[in-house]
Amino acid sequence: MAKELKDLTKRSEDYSKWYNELVVKADLAEQSAVRGCMVIKPYGYAIWEKMQQTLDRMFKETGVQNAYFPLLIPKSFLCREAEHVEGFAKECAVVTHYRLKNDPEGNGVIVDPAARLEEELIVRPTSETIIWGTYKNWIHSYRDLPLLINQWANVMRWEMRTRMFLRTSEFLWQEGHCAHATAEESEKRTEQMINVYADFAEKYMAMPVIKGVKSANERFAGAVNTYTIEAMMQDGKALQSGTSHNLGQNFAKAFDVTFMNKENKPEYVWANSWGVSTRLMGALIMTHSDDNGLVLPPHLAPIQVVIIPIYKNNDQLAEISKAVNPIVDELKKLGVSVKYDDADNRRPGFKFADYELKGVPVRLAIGARDLENGTVEIMRRDTLEKETMALEGIAQRIVAELEDIQQSLFERALKLREAHTYRVESYDEFKNKIEGGGFFLCHWDGTPETEERIKEETKATIRCIPLDSEEEEGVCMVTGKPSKRRVVIARAY
Amino acid sequence: MAKELKDLTKRSEDYSKWYNELVVKADLAEQSAVRGCMVIKPYGYAIWEKMQQTLDRMFKETGVQNAYFPLLIPKSFLCREAEHVEGFAKECAVVTHYRLKNDPEGNGVIVDPAARLEEELIVRPTSETIIWGTYKNWIHSYRDLPLLINQWANVMRWEMRTRMFLRTSEFLWQEGHCAHATAEESEKRTEQMINVYADFAEKYMAMPVIKGVKSANERFAGAVNTYTIEAMMQDGKALQSGTSHNLGQNFAKAFDVTFMNKENKPEYVWANSWGVSTRLMGALIMTHSDDNGLVLPPHLAPIQVVIIPIYKNNDQLAEISKAVNPIVDELKKLGVSVKYDDADNRRPGFKFADYELKGVPVRLAIGARDLENGTVEIMRRDTLEKETMALEGIAQRIVAELEDIQQSLFERALKLREAHTYRVESYDEFKNKIEGGGFFLCHWDGTPETEERIKEETKATIRCIPLDSEEEEGVCMVTGKPSKRRVVIARAY
Repeated sequence: MAKELKDLTKRSEDYSKWYNELVVKADLAEQSAVRGCMVIKPYGYAIWEKMQQTLDRMFKETGVQNAYFPLLIPKSFLCREAEHVEGFAKECAVVTHYRLKNDPEGNGVIVDPAARLEEELIVRPTSETIIWGTYKNWIHSYRDLPLLINQWANVMRWEMRTRMFLRTSEFLWQEGHCAHATAEESEKRTEQMINVYADFAEKYMAMPVIKGVKSANERFAGAVNTYTIEAMMQDGKALQSGTSHNLGQNFAKAFDVTFMNKENKPEYVWANSWGVSTRLMGALIMTHSDDNGLVLPPHLAPIQVVIIPIYKNNDQLAEISKAVNPIVDELKKLGVSVKYDDADNRRPGFKFADYELKGVPVRLAIGARDLENGTVEIMRRDTLEKETMALEGIAQRIVAELEDIQQSLFERALKLREAHTYRVESYDEFKNKIEGGGFFLCHWDGTPETEERIKEETKATIRCIPLDSEEEEGVCMVTGKPSKRRVVIARAY
Repeated sequence: MAKELKDLTKRSEDYSKWYNELVVKADLAEQSAVRGCMVIKPYGYAIWEKMQQTLDRMFKETGVQNAYFPLLIPKSFLCREAEHVEGFAKECAVVTHYRLKNDPEGNGVIVDPAARLEEELIVRPTSETIIWGTYKNWIHSYRDLPLLINQWANVMRWEMRTRMFLRTSEFLWQEGHCAHATAEESEKRTEQMINVYADFAEKYMAMPVIKGVKSANERFAGAVNTYTIEAMMQDGKALQSGTSHNLGQNFAKAFDVTFMNKENKPEYVWANSWGVSTRLMGALIMTHSDDNGLVLPPHLAPIQVVIIPIYKNNDQLAEISKAVNPIVDELKKLGVSVKYDDADNRRPGFKFADYELKGVPVRLAIGARDLENGTVEIMRRDTLEKETMALEGIAQRIVAELEDIQQSLFERALKLREAHTYRVESYDEFKNKIEGGGFFLCHWDGTPETEERIKEETKATIRCIPLDSEEEEGVCMVTGKPSKRRVVIARAY
């Protein structure tokens, strides 16, 4: 492990390579035998589980319930909503047969040509179609509304170029699908969920985000409006971290889902959908980690504190353990996830490097001399700073330290974003500076043509129109046409 | 809802119809637009979530970690383990293409023939192959062992005849896949997990189970030994509720997974796998429910207590709420999941029937006269018995009542099983009695031929050789050949 750590590429050398290596070396995930699909390893999955549990609790606090809908979607369902099929149907896994049989020539098994499906089934790329096909039978009256449902599931999009967590053919996510009696209520829920995502990103991932609205080009296929949270990675690129879509009545119309309103008149149902995925794992890694490995915010770290004994013989270890055990108990009582690593098959230096690589927020090291002095050495993963502290009252101080790390990580990330956010007035200046990464606050004339031109010429896209942006008279940096507010433009993952 | 309840078929009329109706009427699940696949509705999913959370905690307490492996498995992987492919590969969803395109004739989308996969991918029916293909890179030395991993996932088996929860083409489950350095350790883990399942079934589902070993015929494809827990449903049929497989070195050999043992010699890894699925939902329903609807054991009920106010006007409701709110708070503090249903768009009688149908273990009803008397009416769902109790100290009594219901349900189910378990000596007697259902403890000569004959002639199968069975000299009821212990024979779901 020590050797592996030494081999980690530096961020300044090759950020992309650093990321790919770190995902593997920190035991988060690896490529599988199936093209574009990853295996999420136990340590990576433990972080994802913490994300899931937190989000699930936050959803339920807003009245959302979980359910489960089929993995496979009849091909004809995808075609019902015209824009949706344009945006989604193309690159996906298609099930055409339901049986294998022994190869008559003896080479294992082959697809049984007699078992061809009448209608092909698609492995869900997202579930609006199958869910709205189901809601038709659930919704009859305004009394059946709102319907606030979420699903934790795997989905597939046949991506040509994949990167672990950031873009994989199969990924894990949650997708919320709400049905409402009024446009206002649906819009309110759409905004509520982007706020839940932003809260989660900032309070748990320690990742500052910009909340905004997508341009028409970047909208979800079938939505009338898409909200997004956009985060800046350490290389200055944007990462879309969660989206919430106001679907208007598009899916209700496509699947003929109506309800009798309070005036006893039939009306199409109003819809929204919202999701985050294992992509958040990529965002987490690229927001905080450094050349020594992962840096995890305490609120999502599977192990928040590791305690490593330094000893020459079993007597010393016994002495140390006697002092450490009550601290472990106290930390557990305080809700801290702690590991006392007294395994004797790895040296302390080896352990230090390993837990650094894994991003454990706080490390305690305690040896015979510490015991004599009633002290312990504490190291913070975020700053790599060591300090000697009294053993007396250490548990309470660790709790405070964890909160401080959580806060510091957020502030460090916010500072980085602020330092790389630029108000730019001219397209020439933009084209010059975009190479260095960062968020650009620019005036844009609001047309898809200009948006397309920026993308083609600079590989940057309009990330969002920030919700908190102020009206400001200006002119589009590309065309000189009038503009009323600045948008965020950046290159993105 | 009241009408729907009245329509529920009685168990004595048609048990199978009763089950199918109850699943739908109690809002647990429904058929989807995709053949053989169900939608798990929020109320059904809430029960499954409670099962998941409990099992997940129990697994982790034994050292198991979660991970995630790909949904799709290359066809060639399935053929590596010869018995495994025989048992599994045939009826499954096969992905052959990765792209759709617009139909040139304008009829929606069609499969793009140019996007044919070089090797077909199978939607996992179980994950031994992809996981052992992965373990090859994870395991090198005895120090990497044991590997104790579980996955919560969806799987597909293309079933011809499906029933909700009991047998669906797609279902949700967990699959544990452990790797060990010795045969003994792997066998120990295999047994440990069937014990975990039995504990879960008995303590949470209140469902008595018989732990046993499967006959060779009924073993998992690729296993050297399969442990099972078998439960008796109310109609006397058996339901296999969980299995744990000792896989020997079969998968390690198939995927060439070796490790250097302590003597520094290469050796194949020892494996086991174990799983339970949404099938447990079917077992839960058919163990406890009655002609009025679901009966849920308190340990798995999403709502454990419902409180229904009976009032004539808003003043009365306000008075009742004032008395009820502190009880709700106290119950929540005691960890009880409670719902105060003061919705005014449904009458009390309607609510009573609905919560009965949904199996809420305890119902409180409180009206103006109760308030005057300082009492409340409490009804237990398991017995439908009502009692008037003092409001004073009601929360503590509810907690006791919930535990009593949990225990009573288990005992009632155990009694039913005991009353329908028969020691039978002659095959004629067996053939006579099997029509009435039940578990039959019989002597069997141990041959697959006899097992096959019993199955063909009576539709009954050897459910298991019970772990706690005592040695007993006897003769096979079919062939008269010698037998050393009785096995459990029954018709099964």
